[in-house]
Amino acid sequence: MADQMMHSTGAGAGSVWRVNVGTDEIQYQSLPDGWQHLGGRGLVARFLLDDVIATCEPLGPYNKLIFTPGLLVGHMLSSCDRISVGGKSPLTGGAKEANAGGTTGLQLALLGIRALIIEGAPRSSELRLLVLEKSGARFEPAADLAGLGVYETASRLVERFGPKVALALIGPGGEMQLSGAGIQNLDKDRVPARIAARGGLGAVMGSKKLKAIVINAEGGQKPPIADPVLYRQAQKTFTKALMDHPQVHIYRDYGTAAMPRMAQGFGGLPTRNFSAGAFEGMETISGEHLRQMLLDRGGDSETSHACMPGCTIRCSNIFGDEDGKAVVSPLEYETISLMGSNLGIDSLDVVARLNWQVNDLGLDSIEIGAALGVAAEAGLLHWGDGQRALQLLDEIRQGTPLGRILGHGASTVGKIFGVLRVPSVKGQAMSGYEPRAIKGTGVTYATTPQGADHTCGLTIRAKVNHLDPKGQVDLSRTSQINNAGYDTLGACVFAGNGFGAAPETIRDLLNARYGWQVGADILQVLGRETLKLEREFNIRAGFTKADDRLPEYMTYEQVPPLNPVFDVPDEELDQVFNW
Amino acid sequence: MADQMMHSTGAGAGSVWRVNVGTDEIQYQSLPDGWQHLGGRGLVARFLLDDVIATCEPLGPYNKLIFTPGLLVGHMLSSCDRISVGGKSPLTGGAKEANAGGTTGLQLALLGIRALIIEGAPRSSELRLLVLEKSGARFEPAADLAGLGVYETASRLVERFGPKVALALIGPGGEMQLSGAGIQNLDKDRVPARIAARGGLGAVMGSKKLKAIVINAEGGQKPPIADPVLYRQAQKTFTKALMDHPQVHIYRDYGTAAMPRMAQGFGGLPTRNFSAGAFEGMETISGEHLRQMLLDRGGDSETSHACMPGCTIRCSNIFGDEDGKAVVSPLEYETISLMGSNLGIDSLDVVARLNWQVNDLGLDSIEIGAALGVAAEAGLLHWGDGQRALQLLDEIRQGTPLGRILGHGASTVGKIFGVLRVPSVKGQAMSGYEPRAIKGTGVTYATTPQGADHTCGLTIRAKVNHLDPKGQVDLSRTSQINNAGYDTLGACVFAGNGFGAAPETIRDLLNARYGWQVGADILQVLGRETLKLEREFNIRAGFTKADDRLPEYMTYEQVPPLNPVFDVPDEELDQVFNW
Repeated sequence: MADQMMHSTGAGAGSVWRVNVGTDEIQYQSLPDGWQHLGGRGLVARFLLDDVIATCEPLGPYNKLIFTPGLLVGHMLSSCDRISVGGKSPLTGGAKEANAGGTTGLQLALLGIRALIIEGAPRSSELRLLVLEKSGARFEPAADLAGLGVYETASRLVERFGPKVALALIGPGGEMQLSGAGIQNLDKDRVPARIAARGGLGAVMGSKKLKAIVINAEGGQKPPIADPVLYRQAQKTFTKALMDHPQVHIYRDYGTAAMPRMAQGFGGLPTRNFSAGAFEGMETISGEHLRQMLLDRGGDSETSHACMPGCTIRCSNIFGDEDGKAVVSPLEYETISLMGSNLGIDSLDVVARLNWQVNDLGLDSIEIGAALGVAAEAGLLHWGDGQRALQLLDEIRQGTPLGRILGHGASTVGKIFGVLRVPSVKGQAMSGYEPRAIKGTGVTYATTPQGADHTCGLTIRAKVNHLDPKGQVDLSRTSQINNAGYDTLGACVFAGNGFGAAPETIRDLLNARYGWQVGADILQVLGRETLKLEREFNIRAGFTKADDRLPEYMTYEQVPPLNPVFDVPDEELDQVFNW
Repeated sequence: MADQMMHSTGAGAGSVWRVNVGTDEIQYQSLPDGWQHLGGRGLVARFLLDDVIATCEPLGPYNKLIFTPGLLVGHMLSSCDRISVGGKSPLTGGAKEANAGGTTGLQLALLGIRALIIEGAPRSSELRLLVLEKSGARFEPAADLAGLGVYETASRLVERFGPKVALALIGPGGEMQLSGAGIQNLDKDRVPARIAARGGLGAVMGSKKLKAIVINAEGGQKPPIADPVLYRQAQKTFTKALMDHPQVHIYRDYGTAAMPRMAQGFGGLPTRNFSAGAFEGMETISGEHLRQMLLDRGGDSETSHACMPGCTIRCSNIFGDEDGKAVVSPLEYETISLMGSNLGIDSLDVVARLNWQVNDLGLDSIEIGAALGVAAEAGLLHWGDGQRALQLLDEIRQGTPLGRILGHGASTVGKIFGVLRVPSVKGQAMSGYEPRAIKGTGVTYATTPQGADHTCGLTIRAKVNHLDPKGQVDLSRTSQINNAGYDTLGACVFAGNGFGAAPETIRDLLNARYGWQVGADILQVLGRETLKLEREFNIRAGFTKADDRLPEYMTYEQVPPLNPVFDVPDEELDQVFNW
């Protein structure tokens, strides 16, 4: 609990900044003994378990919003400067960590912050800013930003605080405390579209009445490195392994948008609210098509773009319209599948416009795409009708009852309109992989403490028969452990291509930076500890194995064209965390 | 499971009628050995546990809708002909039994039916009727009744099937599968306002695409009595004890509406979304005021009215308007508090019009009253604005997004509009007793497997200090056991005044009717077994002690005028079922 933290009076000595939005008290504390080896998702889980009442109301006074840079954050190591954001999820009711690229993690690390904890109940409904600087934290009024989208908000804040700040901010979705709201972060070009998307953490930030956190690292410095020689060597090895990996070249050419063809090949491309696994319009939303469009259009368009300073993968892009004018950045596979094939939409131009809107609203494009899919099944839009989908996003912006229903995500839409086919687990929508066709990912969706989420353990690249229920639990377990580990390091999952090829570099980087003596299995050690902490939080919050299941209809409704059902036995699902 | 039932081919031999709405197969089975001692709520719980997958989707193919007359039903024993309806609740996700007076229980018993089980997934979205007769069960089309309110529906069905039938039917709320929908039953005067209200069982009936169940007991007979002499003697003793009880005289004069003064006296009258326990307009919604109004108005008005044939308590009423024309029957305390003081409304004329509307929609007036209270806190209506409340009920009738939100109940309204003060437990709204001021009832709300529900264990009449957290767990436990027992007998809770004064009559009535040899503690034996079965179902469905809690805000927000918080310790709450 908070009492265990060592207190100090100045910002300089503390790596844990604790901000109470009710009393305006700000404390600078040390990370407790025994927690030093954690960062990112692992540190979120540790704080959740020890510092947050697991049964608390997610939008009430006892929940806390936690920002933790990963362990490797602070040195622009390629793809390893991610920020984890956590709290009790208003969407799932369980432990939640969502991470993002951009510059927030790096800037927090430059201020020496290992964890920023926002707690308490605001005394007023007026929005504020939280400004973090070397001298400490302070509040500023932000009533003038109320209701603004994240693009306009970011633009005003950059003008007010200068081009070097990092921002973590919410849009109207977070202000309305919608369960689909995330927290946006600036990318290296100050575009506020690197979203800690999942689980409704934007609503938690909204409940604390913070419109944005402004991080000004001026006067800060990179975290110390205990053994610079070892560090440089490991960094070199890692970077080479990453650059040499064939998959990384695919990311650079096509980004994540390379996935539609692959997913469709397995019969696993979510189509029309997960009622099919293949989409007749797939080719025009494919990465290959996307790349050609961007090359043809030129102008602002970029086929390869880095979200974090120093990233060598550069999987991002800038999507330009027919005149080459930027529409949105990035346009990624999850959005392409959930707001494209999942809605029967075969135009990337339409998907890009939808994407800009959800970004500006500060909402998770996966959750909202899935919500629109369920809404379509309820008769609220026709498959493929992008104009109507845009209208529905405008309902969210207006805060109408229908808009609020949509903004709370797929499960809420299903409940309100009586739709049984809701592709969610623990209240959180599935991402762009049909779990009946990619069964290992189905195991991950079912069992991860986070609610359905491919980033917790995607299995589509494994060389297995994805339709065979056998072996999927082992596959998911390994992937879940590794991903929890990467999320604790602050490493992008794609950095795993480099770490996978040179696993000893994780050990070396950590030992070199922190002066530790960890072993070669540190990734799995961190991953297992993180999962264990999250599971324990969820148990205290009231979760049971009944929550570790896919939606009932997926066990009896076949999904064409390959027509599998989800048939990994419940007893096997209950063995995922039995390692 | 179903396989354990003994099958037969004719209606005559079976007391369990099992109707599959998908295959249209109808089976007539015997009650399994070992279940014969159960009826009503206890038999619902037994079927739920053995026959329903606890983790199933409440509105999906695996849930079942179960009708069970109580053990004493069939002989017009005063206040003991209630029908229990059960299933997995779409509102709470747990075991649900809601019971009602009227004629459904009696007519089912005359057909020899101990349990009617409706199961399967309908093949078509078209509404049907299920007609039960001596010769068996059959379907009839009912598309012509789609969207009709329960009053018009009942009137048409009585015309079609004759004045002697009993009906169990749903309104637009059930058709829309709203979680606040109940199942209406005819009273002895064919008014369809005896509602099995709580937990959304009307939505389950809607999911099975049944608009009504028509029960024609022609040719049926009263259930056999093993020892008529003993039965008549026990009946006489019970009836006298009931008639002599002073509380019964109060029910006859004032009905349940006697309660506002009493609740307010304890600081426990829910006022303005449970933000206060006393209402400045209480006198004009009191039972004393109600009685004088009805006496003054005359015409259709009746101050005392029986809902079931043979009831000697006659706690019901007919509320007439200024010209004496019937507005609604009955007008009861729960509606008066939830749609009166809870909305800041001090006019019984307004409450009566709201009551007619929710009745006609086939919705639970407690859940909808609480939903409107939360909606008022969200700014959707002003306190006391009955006209706006009527408009909001019309939104439900129109099936607008806002109407659907309201129809799903208080928790859904709170979630959609970001209101923390939601007076619900397990997703079900509290009834007319503020749990911070009547703490024993707070313990019941928190811990009953049914979700917040005073009928599971009201403690307001106990001679204790209701503000003192000590002893409330014992008080609630006793009350929960007794009430589960009464619900298993099919006895109205008010019959408990008679049984309480002559407890041996329960033993004698059961032994005389069934030829059993049960002891004097049979009420508690049945009550404990019922609660144990319900708890086990809930555990399988994923409930934990985290679900046995009042809303968080009630633990830190004082409720004026007496300003208590709810402070019965969690550890004590966890001991309620430890007997």
